[in-house]
Amino acid sequence: MNPTPDHPEADSPLKARQNPRAIVREVGLRDGLQSVATVVPTAQKIEWVNAAYATGQREIEVGSFVPARLLPQLADTAEVLAHARTLPGLVASVLVPNLRGAERAIECQADLMVVPLSASHAHSLANLRKTPDEVVAEVARIRAARDAAGSRTLIEGGVGTAFGCTIQGEVAESEVLRLMQALLDAGADRVSLADTVGYADPASVQRLFEKAHALVGERLACAHFHDTRGMGLANAYAAWQTGITRFDACLAGIGGCPHAPGASGNVSTEDLAFMLERMGVDTGLDVPALLALRQGVAGWLAGETLHGTLWQAGLPKTAPAHVSVMPVMPAMATAAALA
Amino acid sequence: MNPTPDHPEADSPLKARQNPRAIVREVGLRDGLQSVATVVPTAQKIEWVNAAYATGQREIEVGSFVPARLLPQLADTAEVLAHARTLPGLVASVLVPNLRGAERAIECQADLMVVPLSASHAHSLANLRKTPDEVVAEVARIRAARDAAGSRTLIEGGVGTAFGCTIQGEVAESEVLRLMQALLDAGADRVSLADTVGYADPASVQRLFEKAHALVGERLACAHFHDTRGMGLANAYAAWQTGITRFDACLAGIGGCPHAPGASGNVSTEDLAFMLERMGVDTGLDVPALLALRQGVAGWLAGETLHGTLWQAGLPKTAPAHVSVMPVMPAMATAAALA
Repeated sequence: MNPTPDHPEADSPLKARQNPRAIVREVGLRDGLQSVATVVPTAQKIEWVNAAYATGQREIEVGSFVPARLLPQLADTAEVLAHARTLPGLVASVLVPNLRGAERAIECQADLMVVPLSASHAHSLANLRKTPDEVVAEVARIRAARDAAGSRTLIEGGVGTAFGCTIQGEVAESEVLRLMQALLDAGADRVSLADTVGYADPASVQRLFEKAHALVGERLACAHFHDTRGMGLANAYAAWQTGITRFDACLAGIGGCPHAPGASGNVSTEDLAFMLERMGVDTGLDVPALLALRQGVAGWLAGETLHGTLWQAGLPKTAPAHVSVMPVMPAMATAAALA
Repeated sequence: MNPTPDHPEADSPLKARQNPRAIVREVGLRDGLQSVATVVPTAQKIEWVNAAYATGQREIEVGSFVPARLLPQLADTAEVLAHARTLPGLVASVLVPNLRGAERAIECQADLMVVPLSASHAHSLANLRKTPDEVVAEVARIRAARDAAGSRTLIEGGVGTAFGCTIQGEVAESEVLRLMQALLDAGADRVSLADTVGYADPASVQRLFEKAHALVGERLACAHFHDTRGMGLANAYAAWQTGITRFDACLAGIGGCPHAPGASGNVSTEDLAFMLERMGVDTGLDVPALLALRQGVAGWLAGETLHGTLWQAGLPKTAPAHVSVMPVMPAMATAAALA
């Protein structure tokens, strides 16, 4: 967080809170692929993981331990995870909706498991069939199972619908903060905030992330934004200004909002990486390689609605001064110090 | 700029520099329509102006005084301007590339004329066939003509390619600042900064706008962003944080970047208005009415590439708390105090 000789601070008061490095966590293999009809074969997923690793990505959510009948697209999560674990320094994570999924994540030695919680009571019941506090209780059981197994799999509580909900409408900031603290009290190693349905704006992001930081400090580990109403990058910038240095994103913006057909879903990896690099933030990512990977994955997903802007406009003429091509990851120190 | 009882400041240090009101200046009738093949009939342009006025827009760039053989789409600028001048409180502006155009703007009693200058020497020669300093000299002649005519038409120097250029690449901040000051010294009433080709990022926006503010203060009147690489709203947010309260935008994001076919052009009016309103900034705009207007204009422009996200996703369930429907314009005090 402190200025370094390589990253001298500008005179802006904002800069004092900024970290010149950031991590773009790829969640396209989970959050993206679960939302499309195409079932991507395991071999292609492994090719994607390898290529993402080659672009510099060192945190990848490879799938979800949910029953295959619910999400057949992610039925091969254990295989993809097993491969991801062979890549040195890669933080391979999975989503787990409950204790049963967590037991598989522990058994498969995932580096990290993300347990989703919806701060909207109505969304939680509709989506997870549990109240938010029942999810908190489940996290306590997951923590106990993790500890009993002597496992090193980290637990991240992902607080979704943090900026509002398509079912219930408003979600109180106080409720989001209460649940975030409850997750940590129940044994989560860290928490993240997600704008699940694309309701956030830069001002609400700044407000909630500042409050969350004040409450849980560095244990607020990640920001997850959607681009549903075009504010994905603006929200990421606002969160960055509050000190967040890890962002979820999906290559090609895969993953739509189920409540608004055709609307953009997740922030696209390549657009976010480009913005950060362009801002002088070191993501460790090779943006041209990400664009090439996007083209490949887009080919596998022919017929699906994809998003993002950079692939269409191309890199600007002034990119070489800003877009680094770095095979060695300076951000790994941060990644290694998870939790 | 100061806090008011209606807009209490949050505890963030950023808020102290924020103004709770902003103006979205519609430039779709000029910057948008000059970039599309469709020639929109005068009657439809007038319908657009009327509808935009009804949504709450009080600053509209209605066209450009350039030879009709160059931009036949804008050949009826004088007629559209004459109509716009009949709407109470509307600031009707035109773009003028030279003294000849300025003389027409003065004759037609435009409220404001924007004189474009490209900070990129190469872009200036290619686009305007003048060096930037020759444009400054033209502004001095325009000012003399304005004063000689006893006209009240304001002069805005619009500094384009302020964040880089597709021809020359880098554009030095020092050159942008020098030309901005030179425009004011030559007699421009105010200046604006434009990311003509979509090269800006939030960090470069913050840096340049802070320097520009420090140099010319409130005479820095407007920010003009493109969404070429998805950062249009993020850049607008960054500029807002530096104190900018007037933004150019095009309904439906009309107007592509000629150097990247298919890429987004101007920031879309409805998306920007929605972001600002959602942030709690009073734009005086009726966002649902803007969406309805977008639909109408999109119908006229069938076959053209349009942009924007809000029209596709729709308003969020929590919109009523944030999106105001205000027929009376509190921002008019600011608009009236132009220059």
